[in-house]
Amino acid sequence: MTEVRVAGVGLTKFGRQPERTGRDLFAEAALNAFADADVPRADVDALNYGNFIGSLAENQGHQAPLMAEAAGLRCPATRYEEACASAGVAVREAVRTVRSGEADVVVAGGMERMNNLGTGDATAGLSIAADDLFEIRAGMTFPGAYALMARAYFDEYGGGRTDLAHVASKNHANAVDNEYAQYRREVTVEEALDAPPIATPLHLFDACPITDGASALVLVSEAYADANDLDAPVAITGTGQGTDNLALGDREHLTRTPAADDAAATAYDEAGIGPDDVDLAEVHDCFTIAEVLATESLGFFAPGEGISAARDGVTTADGDLPINLSGGLKAKGHPVGATGGSQIVELTRLLRGDHPNSRHVPDAEVAVAHNAGGTVASAVVHVLEVAR
Amino acid sequence: MTEVRVAGVGLTKFGRQPERTGRDLFAEAALNAFADADVPRADVDALNYGNFIGSLAENQGHQAPLMAEAAGLRCPATRYEEACASAGVAVREAVRTVRSGEADVVVAGGMERMNNLGTGDATAGLSIAADDLFEIRAGMTFPGAYALMARAYFDEYGGGRTDLAHVASKNHANAVDNEYAQYRREVTVEEALDAPPIATPLHLFDACPITDGASALVLVSEAYADANDLDAPVAITGTGQGTDNLALGDREHLTRTPAADDAAATAYDEAGIGPDDVDLAEVHDCFTIAEVLATESLGFFAPGEGISAARDGVTTADGDLPINLSGGLKAKGHPVGATGGSQIVELTRLLRGDHPNSRHVPDAEVAVAHNAGGTVASAVVHVLEVAR
Repeated sequence: MTEVRVAGVGLTKFGRQPERTGRDLFAEAALNAFADADVPRADVDALNYGNFIGSLAENQGHQAPLMAEAAGLRCPATRYEEACASAGVAVREAVRTVRSGEADVVVAGGMERMNNLGTGDATAGLSIAADDLFEIRAGMTFPGAYALMARAYFDEYGGGRTDLAHVASKNHANAVDNEYAQYRREVTVEEALDAPPIATPLHLFDACPITDGASALVLVSEAYADANDLDAPVAITGTGQGTDNLALGDREHLTRTPAADDAAATAYDEAGIGPDDVDLAEVHDCFTIAEVLATESLGFFAPGEGISAARDGVTTADGDLPINLSGGLKAKGHPVGATGGSQIVELTRLLRGDHPNSRHVPDAEVAVAHNAGGTVASAVVHVLEVAR
Repeated sequence: MTEVRVAGVGLTKFGRQPERTGRDLFAEAALNAFADADVPRADVDALNYGNFIGSLAENQGHQAPLMAEAAGLRCPATRYEEACASAGVAVREAVRTVRSGEADVVVAGGMERMNNLGTGDATAGLSIAADDLFEIRAGMTFPGAYALMARAYFDEYGGGRTDLAHVASKNHANAVDNEYAQYRREVTVEEALDAPPIATPLHLFDACPITDGASALVLVSEAYADANDLDAPVAITGTGQGTDNLALGDREHLTRTPAADDAAATAYDEAGIGPDDVDLAEVHDCFTIAEVLATESLGFFAPGEGISAARDGVTTADGDLPINLSGGLKAKGHPVGATGGSQIVELTRLLRGDHPNSRHVPDAEVAVAHNAGGTVASAVVHVLEVAR
């Protein structure tokens, strides 16, 4: 099986940029990835593109051909939609295509525009990631759903708002030096605790913002990298995907995310590693409680023990296992269809040593990306390693 | 490389069924496919699901986990969106996954609900397959776009409305015996010519209807079929995908569909066949002119010569090369996200000899499916063969 290398990575600035079109955003990320990759566009075999609500936000479906054109590519182009894990599945399929030998060079990533919708419409748009018949029509929103999960967690295992405030504070601290982040400012634990409630027990700083942005990766086979003498030291050595019932009410637990358990098991197995081998991770912290559940599904902590990890300094920038050194969805931002790709962009740079936060992980060799859709009805996990 | 076999196929009735939910429709198609396949659901490694406008039609994104649940599957589930070629790309990725050895059993298909939107909203919904900024806002609709293509074709090569009326009449005749078809009635050439115009030179019977429905396929590796003694005589031996600029105004020709040329070239190459080896085909006749362009891209006819094929009896049920024996999108119907899968369902049954129209092609061994998105900005071509 061919090893898959990350030849180049690109992002746009994450933030409020409602005046920019989707094609403009994705083209910028793709151009940045090609500038980083030293791969001619004519060599690209496929574009795998993630987007969630473009049909609502831009009245634009069928975006894959549009994005191929915007990026100057002439190759089969496919859109993947898996709610907030859209780019995760796009990257995963790219990895599988390259390692199967079907392709040597695949561009993967995604884009989302959300701020042009306005906050109310963006929240309504996001809600279509939940079950319309049994959740949305009953009044559910994502802040409400994650609030239920947080409350159930506190009831089952203990922990509380202060623990979650430490997650928010940590991720904001990490974003300060990230030039792509939406919120490059510190938030203290007290500030997070004092912020207005959005769905008790979650308050404002427990939630990620509404973000516009794009991500792109140029993935190549090891053979292609060698033949073209590319500087591509990071390999994707494992990819896993899991699926759960869509509605929260159809799950066995509110405090577990088995889709992510499954995705992690596959990815670890493929890479031949376990959670103890991981030096750092980017996880899907759409809400602070989601980071806690993610780190437990990834096996970093036993169920019920992830809640105190930020507070105890384990997952902070200089802790034993830094989580979301990019700032995470929380502070870097969450352009839904781009997020799964952007996590891998960040980890690639952190492992290569050219990320502002690489200084916190100078010897890191193994990293994990965890991208989730909805209330983790979908999850994708990737393992990245510095190639020997 | 593993050969990919079609172990089972399933459809719902195509037609107006606005009272049924999407999950209900897809579950029925999947249950039919499992009833046909004799494969336990626990063996399924992945669900690849196509859907186009569920975010608009049902306020439901993130449909893949929902459909997995509805079909009784617990496996990674992914939604593909490529406008009217959504199920085509879902099937294509399933074929590639199975033959790479990544999976032994993949369920692929799709679903679309459209009639609950009403005709006006369905037409508006479909228009998001075109370029919003440069086409939709200028007033373009798909009937208008295909009318431009038809007019350009007549100008460049000759032919006219009567030739297209023969395409409509042929496909309606083919649908009469198809129990899944939306319109099981004959339409004479005169009736088609006399129907009201929708976008000159296209009249009512040049356009496919607004359809609700679903399709599902159980695809397995040859090794799995052998080990489980499955009756799965049809193999998918080639899959190709092509992409073109999204907006019609950004193309070199109005009378050519290079995305389909590219898809066909790849699919033929993989299968080791050429157009002369093909015994029958299902092509994407969303409009009658689209069937003509498809048959030219597939190499059945030289550019400018496909227009008279139905009129000359070449592509009729008892002609040399029957096209759209199912009735096609024209008469069988076009539930957008399901269509690419349903074409392969029909061809599988036609090749197995258990389709009502198999009597027209008793010795057929090689079939081609052509599925297109938008004005063929995307195209997917599959080659099916009776396994030796």
